[in-house]
Amino acid sequence: MKLAVFGPGLLGSSIALAAQRRGDYRVSIWGRREEAVAELRARGIGHLASSDLAAVARDADLAVLCVPIGVMPELAAQLAELVPRTALVTDVGSVKAPVVAELGAIFRDTARFVGSHPMAGSEQQGLHAARADLFEQHVCIVTPDAQSEPQAVAEISGFWESLGCVVRQLPPEEHDEIAAAISHVPHLLAAALVNAVAGANPSAFEFAGPGFRDTTRVASGPPEMWTEILGVNRVAVKKSAEAMIEKLREFLTLLESPATGGDATMNQFLTSAKAQRDRLRVRA
Amino acid sequence: MKLAVFGPGLLGSSIALAAQRRGDYRVSIWGRREEAVAELRARGIGHLASSDLAAVARDADLAVLCVPIGVMPELAAQLAELVPRTALVTDVGSVKAPVVAELGAIFRDTARFVGSHPMAGSEQQGLHAARADLFEQHVCIVTPDAQSEPQAVAEISGFWESLGCVVRQLPPEEHDEIAAAISHVPHLLAAALVNAVAGANPSAFEFAGPGFRDTTRVASGPPEMWTEILGVNRVAVKKSAEAMIEKLREFLTLLESPATGGDATMNQFLTSAKAQRDRLRVRA
Repeated sequence: MKLAVFGPGLLGSSIALAAQRRGDYRVSIWGRREEAVAELRARGIGHLASSDLAAVARDADLAVLCVPIGVMPELAAQLAELVPRTALVTDVGSVKAPVVAELGAIFRDTARFVGSHPMAGSEQQGLHAARADLFEQHVCIVTPDAQSEPQAVAEISGFWESLGCVVRQLPPEEHDEIAAAISHVPHLLAAALVNAVAGANPSAFEFAGPGFRDTTRVASGPPEMWTEILGVNRVAVKKSAEAMIEKLREFLTLLESPATGGDATMNQFLTSAKAQRDRLRVRA
Repeated sequence: MKLAVFGPGLLGSSIALAAQRRGDYRVSIWGRREEAVAELRARGIGHLASSDLAAVARDADLAVLCVPIGVMPELAAQLAELVPRTALVTDVGSVKAPVVAELGAIFRDTARFVGSHPMAGSEQQGLHAARADLFEQHVCIVTPDAQSEPQAVAEISGFWESLGCVVRQLPPEEHDEIAAAISHVPHLLAAALVNAVAGANPSAFEFAGPGFRDTTRVASGPPEMWTEILGVNRVAVKKSAEAMIEKLREFLTLLESPATGGDATMNQFLTSAKAQRDRLRVRA
C-alpha cells in the first residue's frame, strides 16, 4: 500500500514512522521547505521525502494531509489534480465540520475523502518530536458525513488501527463539540491560567510543583496552530468555555457560603470530579 | 538526630522514607489507626511506627506534623505537652497563615515552631504511594513569621534540603496567595473542567487524549483534603479564581471579534502563555 503523507510536523512525521515500522506501507512524505525535507531524509522518515508535491502524490493509495487547517484547502485543491481517482484521502485537522465540508467538496469527483482526528498530539512540535509509537492506544476519531462511502470509512478506520489507534466515529459537528470540551477549552484554560499567574505575580512560577506543571503543560503548544483551532471552532469553544466558567462560579458561590453548608457541597463537587477523573483511561 | 513524623499519609510516609534513606536520622512515625501502623511496619517505614503519641513524641529533636489541616491544632495541642522544649516543630499544611498563627501560638512556650509547605504532593494518597525521592528537586516553602527564631528557620530549611528540596522562604500570607495561584486554583480548574464535561456530555471522556489527562490529573486528589484547603484559603482562592475568569473572558471577547483583529491578539495571548510556560522548571 502506497501511503503519501503531506506535512513534516509532529503528526505527519509520526504517521510516516509508524507506517514504516509496520512494514506493509511504502511511505512518501512531502514537505514544502527543502530544510524540512533534508531533515526528514537525515532521520530516515519516509522511504521517499520530497518537496515535489506531484512526486509524492502520484500513485498514492492513501493520502494524509497533516498541515495546519488554514492551509488545508489550498493543499487539497492542488492534490485533487494529482492523486489517482481511486485514492483514499484523509486529514488530521483538530476541527472537523468546516474542514470536512471544504475538503469533501474539493475531492468530491477526484478521490474518496473521509476526515480524521488522531487524539495524540503533544505540546512538542515538529519532526524532532516524531515517534513511531505516538498513536498506540490513543483514540482516533473518524468523522464521516452524509457523502462518505462506507467502504472508504472502513478503509480509513483500518489505517488508523494499523498504526495502533483505537478508532471511534463521530459526525463532524459532534466531533467539534467534544473536541472543544476535551481539548480546545483545556488548552485555553492552561494558557489563561499561566497568563493569570503572570499577571498577578510572575515570581509565583518559581514555586510551582508537579500539579501546576501538568495542569499547564499544553500551554506550551504552538500558538499559531492553537489560534487557528480556537478561531475555527469558536462557536463550540465559546459554549464549552461558558459551561466551564459556570462550574467555576458554582464553586465560588459555595466557597462564600460555608455557614449554609457550602463545605459539604464543595466536597460533593470535588468528589464527583474525582470519580469521573478516576475512570479516565488514557495511555501514559 | 531524632525525627518524629505525625501522620502516615503520602507526605508523612515519604518524609520518613527519605530521612531513613539518608541514614543520619532516627525516624519515628505515628499513625492514629492500628491498621495504618501495621502497614507502616510492613513496609519498613520508620525505625519505630506506633499509635502511641507519647512514644513517638518524646525525645524528638524535630517533629513534623503531616495530618489534614483541620485536625492540626488538636494534634498540636497534645504534642505541646509531649515534645521536649528544645524540639523544633514544623507542619506540611498547604495553607499557612491560619495554620502558622494557630500552631505558633500553641507551641509558643513549649517548643520552637516554623511552618513549611513542600510542593511535592500527588493526586495519589496514602502510604502506598510513599517514595523516598518524593522531595528531590522540588520546592519547599518555609514560612517564618515575626515570632520565628532565625536559628529555627535555618534548622528547618536545612532539614528540607537534606531530603532533597530546594528551599524558599515566604511570609505565610504571601505563601497563601501564591499557593492559591499555582496549586489551589489549578485544582479547582481541573475539577470544574471534569464536572463541566460530565455535565455537558459524559461520553466525551471516551475521546480524551494526553492533554485532557494531564490538565485534569490533580482532580483525582482527595476531595476531603481539597475541600479543607480551598475552604481555609477561601479569600486568596476567590481572588485568584476571579483573575482566572477575567483572563478567560478576555480571550472569549477576542474570539468573538476576529474581524477587528481578534485573531492577532489571540495569538499574542497564547504566545505569551507559551513563553511563560516554557520557562517553567519543575522536576519530571
